[in-house]
Amino acid sequence: MEQIILKTPAARSDIYVGCPWKTVHKLLPRSGVAIITDDNVMRLYGDRFPPFPVFSVTPGEGSKQISVVEQLAGKLLDTGIDRSGMILAIGGGVVSDITGFLAAVYMRGIRFGSISTTLLSQVDASVGGKNGVNLGNVKNMIGTIRQPEFVICAPSMVVSLPEDEYLSGLAELIKTAIIGDSELFDTIVQDTDGIAERNETLLSAIIARAVRFKASVVAEDEHETGLRRILNFGHTLGHAIELTQKIKHGFAVASGMELATWFSFAKGFISEEEKGMITGILRHFRLTGTAMPCEDEMRRMISHDKKKAGSSINFVFLEGIGRATVMATGIDEIMEFYRNIHNSI
Amino acid sequence: MEQIILKTPAARSDIYVGCPWKTVHKLLPRSGVAIITDDNVMRLYGDRFPPFPVFSVTPGEGSKQISVVEQLAGKLLDTGIDRSGMILAIGGGVVSDITGFLAAVYMRGIRFGSISTTLLSQVDASVGGKNGVNLGNVKNMIGTIRQPEFVICAPSMVVSLPEDEYLSGLAELIKTAIIGDSELFDTIVQDTDGIAERNETLLSAIIARAVRFKASVVAEDEHETGLRRILNFGHTLGHAIELTQKIKHGFAVASGMELATWFSFAKGFISEEEKGMITGILRHFRLTGTAMPCEDEMRRMISHDKKKAGSSINFVFLEGIGRATVMATGIDEIMEFYRNIHNSI
Repeated sequence: MEQIILKTPAARSDIYVGCPWKTVHKLLPRSGVAIITDDNVMRLYGDRFPPFPVFSVTPGEGSKQISVVEQLAGKLLDTGIDRSGMILAIGGGVVSDITGFLAAVYMRGIRFGSISTTLLSQVDASVGGKNGVNLGNVKNMIGTIRQPEFVICAPSMVVSLPEDEYLSGLAELIKTAIIGDSELFDTIVQDTDGIAERNETLLSAIIARAVRFKASVVAEDEHETGLRRILNFGHTLGHAIELTQKIKHGFAVASGMELATWFSFAKGFISEEEKGMITGILRHFRLTGTAMPCEDEMRRMISHDKKKAGSSINFVFLEGIGRATVMATGIDEIMEFYRNIHNSI
Repeated sequence: MEQIILKTPAARSDIYVGCPWKTVHKLLPRSGVAIITDDNVMRLYGDRFPPFPVFSVTPGEGSKQISVVEQLAGKLLDTGIDRSGMILAIGGGVVSDITGFLAAVYMRGIRFGSISTTLLSQVDASVGGKNGVNLGNVKNMIGTIRQPEFVICAPSMVVSLPEDEYLSGLAELIKTAIIGDSELFDTIVQDTDGIAERNETLLSAIIARAVRFKASVVAEDEHETGLRRILNFGHTLGHAIELTQKIKHGFAVASGMELATWFSFAKGFISEEEKGMITGILRHFRLTGTAMPCEDEMRRMISHDKKKAGSSINFVFLEGIGRATVMATGIDEIMEFYRNIHNSI
């Protein structure tokens, strides 16, 4: 088991990778706890839940609505959860996004922790304190940044994920390697079989490595005014692809990363070899190759991007494998690149 | 004009008392601003608003709903307000509560400031960063604590408030004096005529004094884990009275303060003379004397109090004029006191 400590000016978050998830009993108070989960997780793991009231939401992105958070707050109130209480999220990214937001705003903030059940949430949503809900179909428009007290990542749960859910998480894991950890990238490239077979020891090691990198970035720039923006690599175009093509987050981000890699190459920031290695690993796991939205759709979607400031977007480029950089880039320039690519596919 | 600076570990808030409210022009960026107000304030002052898009809500507590915040977020998005933008609240407590919450959660937090148009909000809601909405009829259940960049308090607007609105704010101003500033208490007692006549110079001075005290408390304990709790003096029973009797906040708090003063006397914490002085000033301005909820209603209401921890409430007692203290007090003990008082009225 590895314990990674994320410290920010306001809070501390302890992330446990590779521990049995019943470890959670030691981290919870004896009373005043409520559990938020979704119906799938409840069905799979409900019999192992700690003995507290459980509120389960419908699985999927459709639950990331402010009305769902309001309903859950009403249930916490009815259950008698007060400021001294705690909320425990058990689930993937949707559950941790909703629960983190609920904990941030219920009675102006109460304690929370999470057990992360998917690879995607273990390497991404659970760590770093971003939470939130969608506004209509615009993703994560309403939310806060607030660190959970703890996150438990049990790779044993990753082993039993459906294939597309596993691959979706793998895309974010590969993202971490591409933007900040070339050794992790080498490990992934060298043991694609172990990854495909979901070797638990290997998974523990690479998840811990990805979490450690993310924690170091968040510790330096919790509120995303600088460095943290690199975590959005592949996400500007990826979010647009996710929403227009209605595919899983990781696959959309993978296509977004491929485009951002090509864009970096087109601007002369990376070599053809680096471009080839990145494209290669994404294709090896069949993460890319999805259909692309038309130009007008793409322009409309990125114009709503949270990373936008005026007519520019803080776009994440690569300068090599393991090195990312953020540059304010005109929406027109992004669209010109996209038009060329789109016409050539 | 007086400028009071509130510094917390995470933020700084500049509060300007007694300045013309067009000062706001200097504090706003040139573009990317949206104004949130209510229909009354819009009618009275709309012609003086800075030249930015305005979104107006229905006046009153009924607008403190999460659905209203969601609608406003949709309008900000449609207007193209992004993370580099700013929201300006112009109004009283309801407008600043909604706007502060909106600014805290829109795109995970954008800049905001406020022009405070009522006495109540100038001495209370606008300063200290508490924001939020109600959950059903339980007050302020959903919200955050986040400091506005600036607050402008123009006593000239206080002069034209309806009488009950003015008196409601006066109750919170007297609260500040009772819990933390015996000199302010003396000033109020010695110039009740000037206060009744709303002498603008006098108002500027006492508002600034009340704001300075509140800012000093918030600076020390932004998240209400200790000292800040004294600001809740009169609020445990006051909130219950406000909701069951449907009267204005300040009047309910005044009755709550009278009860808490009697409770402090009953426990031997203050003298009969001090009790008499506090009761006297509240009665002088006809702030108390409202009907009280029955015992069952009172118990139900305080059981939902945010200040509750288990079966106790952090109840604010007095130890003298200008000195408050917080003690975890059993709900049963509070109810026993209330029963005796209620039966003797």
